[in-house]
Amino acid sequence: MKIDMNADMGESFGPWRMGNDQALLDHVTSANIACGFHAGDPDVMARTMRMAAQNGVGIGAHPGFHDLQGFGRRRMRLSSDEMGNMVAYQLGAARGIAAAAGAQVRHLKLHGALSNMASEDAGIARACFDAALRVDPDLILVALAGTAMEAAARDLGARVAAEIFADRAYEDDASLVDRSKPGAVLHDPVAAAERVIAMLRDKAIHSIGGKRIPCRIDTVCIHGDGPEAVPFARQLRRELAAADIQLRMFD
Amino acid sequence: MKIDMNADMGESFGPWRMGNDQALLDHVTSANIACGFHAGDPDVMARTMRMAAQNGVGIGAHPGFHDLQGFGRRRMRLSSDEMGNMVAYQLGAARGIAAAAGAQVRHLKLHGALSNMASEDAGIARACFDAALRVDPDLILVALAGTAMEAAARDLGARVAAEIFADRAYEDDASLVDRSKPGAVLHDPVAAAERVIAMLRDKAIHSIGGKRIPCRIDTVCIHGDGPEAVPFARQLRRELAAADIQLRMFD
Amino acid sequence: MKIDMNADMGESFGPWRMGNDQALLDHVTSANIACGFHAGDPDVMARTMRMAAQNGVGIGAHPGFHDLQGFGRRRMRLSSDEMGNMVAYQLGAARGIAAAAGAQVRHLKLHGALSNMASEDAGIARACFDAALRVDPDLILVALAGTAMEAAARDLGARVAAEIFADRAYEDDASLVDRSKPGAVLHDPVAAAERVIAMLRDKAIHSIGGKRIPCRIDTVCIHGDGPEAVPFARQLRRELAAADIQLRMFD
Amino acid sequence: MKIDMNADMGESFGPWRMGNDQALLDHVTSANIACGFHAGDPDVMARTMRMAAQNGVGIGAHPGFHDLQGFGRRRMRLSSDEMGNMVAYQLGAARGIAAAAGAQVRHLKLHGALSNMASEDAGIARACFDAALRVDPDLILVALAGTAMEAAARDLGARVAAEIFADRAYEDDASLVDRSKPGAVLHDPVAAAERVIAMLRDKAIHSIGGKRIPCRIDTVCIHGDGPEAVPFARQLRRELAAADIQLRMFD
Repeated sequence: MKIDMNADMGESFGPWRMGNDQALLDHVTSANIACGFHAGDPDVMARTMRMAAQNGVGIGAHPGFHDLQGFGRRRMRLSSDEMGNMVAYQLGAARGIAAAAGAQVRHLKLHGALSNMASEDAGIARACFDAALRVDPDLILVALAGTAMEAAARDLGARVAAEIFADRAYEDDASLVDRSKPGAVLHDPVAAAERVIAMLRDKAIHSIGGKRIPCRIDTVCIHGDGPEAVPFARQLRRELAAADIQLRMFD
Repeated sequence: MKIDMNADMGESFGPWRMGNDQALLDHVTSANIACGFHAGDPDVMARTMRMAAQNGVGIGAHPGFHDLQGFGRRRMRLSSDEMGNMVAYQLGAARGIAAAAGAQVRHLKLHGALSNMASEDAGIARACFDAALRVDPDLILVALAGTAMEAAARDLGARVAAEIFADRAYEDDASLVDRSKPGAVLHDPVAAAERVIAMLRDKAIHSIGGKRIPCRIDTVCIHGDGPEAVPFARQLRRELAAADIQLRMFD
Repeated sequence: MKIDMNADMGESFGPWRMGNDQALLDHVTSANIACGFHAGDPDVMARTMRMAAQNGVGIGAHPGFHDLQGFGRRRMRLSSDEMGNMVAYQLGAARGIAAAAGAQVRHLKLHGALSNMASEDAGIARACFDAALRVDPDLILVALAGTAMEAAARDLGARVAAEIFADRAYEDDASLVDRSKPGAVLHDPVAAAERVIAMLRDKAIHSIGGKRIPCRIDTVCIHGDGPEAVPFARQLRRELAAADIQLRMFD
Repeated sequence: MKIDMNADMGESFGPWRMGNDQALLDHVTSANIACGFHAGDPDVMARTMRMAAQNGVGIGAHPGFHDLQGFGRRRMRLSSDEMGNMVAYQLGAARGIAAAAGAQVRHLKLHGALSNMASEDAGIARACFDAALRVDPDLILVALAGTAMEAAARDLGARVAAEIFADRAYEDDASLVDRSKPGAVLHDPVAAAERVIAMLRDKAIHSIGGKRIPCRIDTVCIHGDGPEAVPFARQLRRELAAADIQLRMFD
């Protein structure tokens, strides 16, 4: 058994720092790098991609809404065309920075409110992914396992990496438990690792209500921000190794 | 004899319109399309590139400073790295939008204050162009004929299109006469055409002081904004044809 | 009988022009001036306020969402606190520019998607208006007649100017007919004027379905953009005069 | 003898944190609060002003260039009118947020590159300060002691607080030693305090070359960012107390 481990990175902006990308790059196999709309700027992107490439970590574009103050977490109503253009622009920009840095963008993952909307609405997912594939037909689309987003990605005939969260509880319909509810976030890396391993073995999401939702699982997302991010990643990595699960970049 | 005719386009933003791109596309052979930092947005870029492609007009990225309010016309002090990343980001974004629209970016031209700075300072030109070529080594760099910008582009071994302005007077050092000075702008398309034709025949810039500065000339820039833009382009085109000068996309 | 006539102004931004503010100022009695978040910039604001003051037109702050590309027309989900701070910031900025220009901000009107949301949700209206009144307790709040927005403004004990639209049809619940529906917009200024006069006489909104919804009417909004804006304003003004209705700044 | 101690605050933005405002508010007597152009947003401003008011710390507007990515540290060429409007807008916004929070803006200090330019060029200082005083004639203008900025503020007949830096070395012309030069920054709070006390006693700036430049000194600026900011402030405060110098808000 094998799995990829991904985290959001390059979320600094101008003078402001966020996350501990350098330390996290020792643990993850794929990095989702902000593209300047909700976080990141051309300099942060270049720096982060260079570090990722040096660590042999897969580089992904991580486009979001154009809302720095809201960090791309506030829903915005856009037309399908606007969504597609927004994604093509950010993916292109990421590819430009990567090329200038001698690196390559191999995957794409939607950020924040855009991701939430695309996981609920296949039309939105399709608009975003279709534009992305027109930019690069070989792009790997990271999609939330078991959601409309994954279905949309598969319908487009794309290479898909189905994703689960290491530290977020699931509802019975495979959506994430809202952060405001108790138990929504798993803080203990050992418990989180056990759940990840169980889900991998079962090839199914385990919901908070005890349901098993069969799905493909290619990558597990960990959070890059906060003081526990690096220890969490390290511990999860260890537990996976102990369970004979290889950590390897998705393909 | 032949020459390319280029104009800035895609300078609308959100709800605001600028220029008459559709009409101008009947006359020019290359379009420099704003990349979202000083003008343009992903939707405007997509729309403009699609129109340019339909008209068989060459598509160029037209990166500028990140200063919407100042339209990229206010000088900003950035490091070489920041300049390069800024260009790679915008060029990449333009390539992304172009790819999604089934079109291709074939040239790059710097905008506004960035162009002014790069025409005076080969180090700035080199930082911008070097980043651009790392994104796409086949890119054609449009450079102001006879300036440090052209020298920097040639030093990099790039494909270069040397550019003159149809409606701007030149100083004896091949720089543009400041707009605040009398005679800086040629408003009469016939006089402008005569000067362009003379410069092409002499393979030299004609300065306002009567000097001839030998240089290569591959493309002539016309301005896309203002009510006279389209009639000016039409008239220039006619005069060139009458002088047996072919209008053809640079290569 | 008397009424105020208001229009949105100062919607240019940087190099981009929108509307014909100078001509419109001959006709309206109140100007809602964009505050830099969805349109306008400090220079446009200063210029517009100076013109309004010279024409004896009442100056209003017209705050909207921070979304230039979307012109404040795309809904964004913000907390009540964020809404209030966003309004206090923009109102303060408008007061700053007005003071520097020797003018005064006397009213406030919400823009675009923010206005739509506040007309449907009294909580949002209250958050915005409460913050505005803490900045200036004497501020006149322009509120869509007969909506939750007007109720919220009155609950706060504020000076309120209830507003109808000259050129928009109403549903039976006093909301505006969606622009996508037939008959949503009245293009004929004579028909629009007749309806305005009838509504003023009846002290009621006339809905598209023939319903009369009793309400106070203090001001009528005309649109400032598009080629028909100025002729529309002129004609409406004439019809009102012919009907012996005085055009006068609200209270 | 008495002096005010000021620091820049409210430099967080959206999801990004900068500085330790809460801890620093125990030590300073005046806070310069970013106004949203180079840092800060309406929510950060409201939060910071409320904290400052609760601590009895004087609130100042701290306007800068509209350049978030560059944190207002990159010089931009603007006209005098643009400078003035930019300051009036930000000062007004700060007053709006303060009023909504039940607080008051009593001083203004220019930020970053704008401050550097205004300390070298009295015309720029005058454009900024004149606009600020038209917004609020009672505003206290914080000006770098001994510079063109201070002269411009005094020429306008304003209330002025002349400022020295606790941790920056001075050239013989009262300008700051460039950060790239050795000795430009004093890291030892005890040495810094001794120098501050000596300058206060001598009523003169002590330059790095040993020169004394007589000037008025009303406030000393400490830096709010970095891990040493709070210990530095605490130590400086102690040393001043030990030297019988009262720490008191300027007036």
